Amino acid sequence: MTTVTPRDQQITQDEIFAAHEGGKLVTKSTAPLTSMRDLSIAYTPGVADVCRAIAEDPAKARTYTGAGNTVAVVSDGSAVLGLGDIGPAAAMPVMEGKAQLFSEFAGLNAVPIVLDTQDVDAIVETVVAMAPSFGGINLEDISAPRCFEVERRVKERLDMPVLHDDQHGTAVVVLAALRNAAQVLGRTLTDLQIVISGAGAAGVAIVDMLLEAGVTDIVVLDSKGAIHGDRADLTPVKKSLAARTNPRNVTGGVADALDGADTFIGVSSGNITEDQLRHMAHQPILFSLANPTPEIHPELAARYGGVVATGRSDLPNQINNVLAFPGIFRGALDAQATKITPEMLLAASRAIADVAAETLDAGHIVPQALDDRVAPAVAKAVAEAWDNGQN
Amino acid sequence: MTTVTPRDQQITQDEIFAAHEGGKLVTKSTAPLTSMRDLSIAYTPGVADVCRAIAEDPAKARTYTGAGNTVAVVSDGSAVLGLGDIGPAAAMPVMEGKAQLFSEFAGLNAVPIVLDTQDVDAIVETVVAMAPSFGGINLEDISAPRCFEVERRVKERLDMPVLHDDQHGTAVVVLAALRNAAQVLGRTLTDLQIVISGAGAAGVAIVDMLLEAGVTDIVVLDSKGAIHGDRADLTPVKKSLAARTNPRNVTGGVADALDGADTFIGVSSGNITEDQLRHMAHQPILFSLANPTPEIHPELAARYGGVVATGRSDLPNQINNVLAFPGIFRGALDAQATKITPEMLLAASRAIADVAAETLDAGHIVPQALDDRVAPAVAKAVAEAWDNGQN
Repeated sequence: MTTVTPRDQQITQDEIFAAHEGGKLVTKSTAPLTSMRDLSIAYTPGVADVCRAIAEDPAKARTYTGAGNTVAVVSDGSAVLGLGDIGPAAAMPVMEGKAQLFSEFAGLNAVPIVLDTQDVDAIVETVVAMAPSFGGINLEDISAPRCFEVERRVKERLDMPVLHDDQHGTAVVVLAALRNAAQVLGRTLTDLQIVISGAGAAGVAIVDMLLEAGVTDIVVLDSKGAIHGDRADLTPVKKSLAARTNPRNVTGGVADALDGADTFIGVSSGNITEDQLRHMAHQPILFSLANPTPEIHPELAARYGGVVATGRSDLPNQINNVLAFPGIFRGALDAQATKITPEMLLAASRAIADVAAETLDAGHIVPQALDDRVAPAVAKAVAEAWDNGQN
Repeated sequence: MTTVTPRDQQITQDEIFAAHEGGKLVTKSTAPLTSMRDLSIAYTPGVADVCRAIAEDPAKARTYTGAGNTVAVVSDGSAVLGLGDIGPAAAMPVMEGKAQLFSEFAGLNAVPIVLDTQDVDAIVETVVAMAPSFGGINLEDISAPRCFEVERRVKERLDMPVLHDDQHGTAVVVLAALRNAAQVLGRTLTDLQIVISGAGAAGVAIVDMLLEAGVTDIVVLDSKGAIHGDRADLTPVKKSLAARTNPRNVTGGVADALDGADTFIGVSSGNITEDQLRHMAHQPILFSLANPTPEIHPELAARYGGVVATGRSDLPNQINNVLAFPGIFRGALDAQATKITPEMLLAASRAIADVAAETLDAGHIVPQALDDRVAPAVAKAVAEAWDNGQN
């Protein structure tokens, strides 16, 4: 096991493991239960009045239970961080961490639920069955292409906010960063020529988000090269990508795709060479988000890039989902939204970009992960987008 | 809706509803997340080391996640309090209350999970799928006879403590109370002639518990009368009851069963008349646990009974499951028990009785619900019973 030593902070394994002992969450009563009177109010016999009221009018569950303020963080442990398919038990620390962030940034209760199945039907049925316990479902670290079907089917079945964060959380922050990077460089977002390396959960969602934002020139690469309509080896998801992207019908590998492009977004492993960077447009936008090893070496990226971002907390411009998901769910639950729409995600992205825009330069295209202005701004924008969609 | 006004306390509906606003639970981080250093320890990149360690050695999940200290309180809302089949949303306040009690009395995290299905297969599969998130499963308010099959199948599938509290929690406290009632009256527990009114979840579990404790003369009544082997209308569960109880082959109704008996345990609705009481043995033990209306009017019970207990908090000798379930799960999780055995339940019952025995009289056969000596004593006894069973 490696000791984590980001450049600006020394953290020992001992510290990390000590902080995880007993888990990172505590569930408590909101009020003391120290008298028979307390017990009679919170439990029997008093609770029966509340149950009866909700049975008569189910809408009252939102007011008189915590379900509407609680998000399930659901994973099957099949695609955890850079670790891959480590299963539910080993995924739990990430889900607890996510739940902590929901609490800290958005005042939401969040419950980590790791599943002992990777079967799409079973995941969908489990989530749907337990849904009345929650106000929203954050799907997490489920591998592609299953994640697409799981999310689609859960969304179809439930009238509540459902979000696969690895897809849409990432896409929301990437678009915010891209908008501000273009601004810094005096370019127009919708004119960018963008190469995306990686056609997994994040790559597909970033494509959707960029198309929603009006970008048109996107080339997506998988391990076999540029995705285009003439390839015979495409999965249904990639066929759909081919139909929506690559208008110049670029073929070949990453060098071919990058030739002349002004934006690179890496969401897979892989390595971009100096020669490839040299053939990009002048001062390209370089987002190499693979973690912990970015697709472009930080020194190379600094030398060639006009604006550079990574997924790492020890480098400038960290693309961190925590900028998005707490505020998205806070806003969706505040608005009593029955789903999360593309408009809500665009609004979240714009809100994140706007917070950074107050002090914008090439080293500050997104807010810091801990910037406490972000979640409230995102929540407000998301709730307004839902409300506008209802009118 | 009725206002709850137990004799010794006036509680208004306003108070009750106000106490339920926003729910009764909060889930929080165990440590502050205010610096990038905090974030790097609890979330990325530090968390990856913990995930990797658990992937290599799954036993480490118990130490480095909260799962082993967390109980799921699972209900389908089909048999809630005295309210019946009110569904998952309306059952939520009870499950939140239960979770509060787990936290307050046993220091356990508990998560209310209400299910949008009453199908036995679906309940079992859902609970099994989400089990890696938890250290134990408290099944709650699931109607008979489905509750028997749900519990049996979930226990078979999971190597962790699983308990349908309406069955076994109730049975544990009833046995504790009965042991002390016999003591107060100078009788021998195993010689009691016991009539149980109600062959649902609680009735069946009480029978099991009493048989485990060595009682032999038990007659169980359902709505049709005494359950005996000659009845043609018995469900499988009741056939099994007939085979294990009623050694004197009592037939007929409640009057026939009570004639000469020295103990009545009511766990259904129904009404016992003065005439029926008059034909019981002198100074009978009368546990009328139907809530809020006991099967025997409190004044009649006081006049005829040697020892009287109910389910009500405003009368002496309240048979309250909170005496049992927090300590049972605390002990089982402390001992890393892979199931809850009859011996552990007997030990729990004995521990509850022993706490009350310190100040025993006819009005104090069980400890008060809020007695903070109970849960630790139960936990210790349960853990020891598991350990003894392993040697």
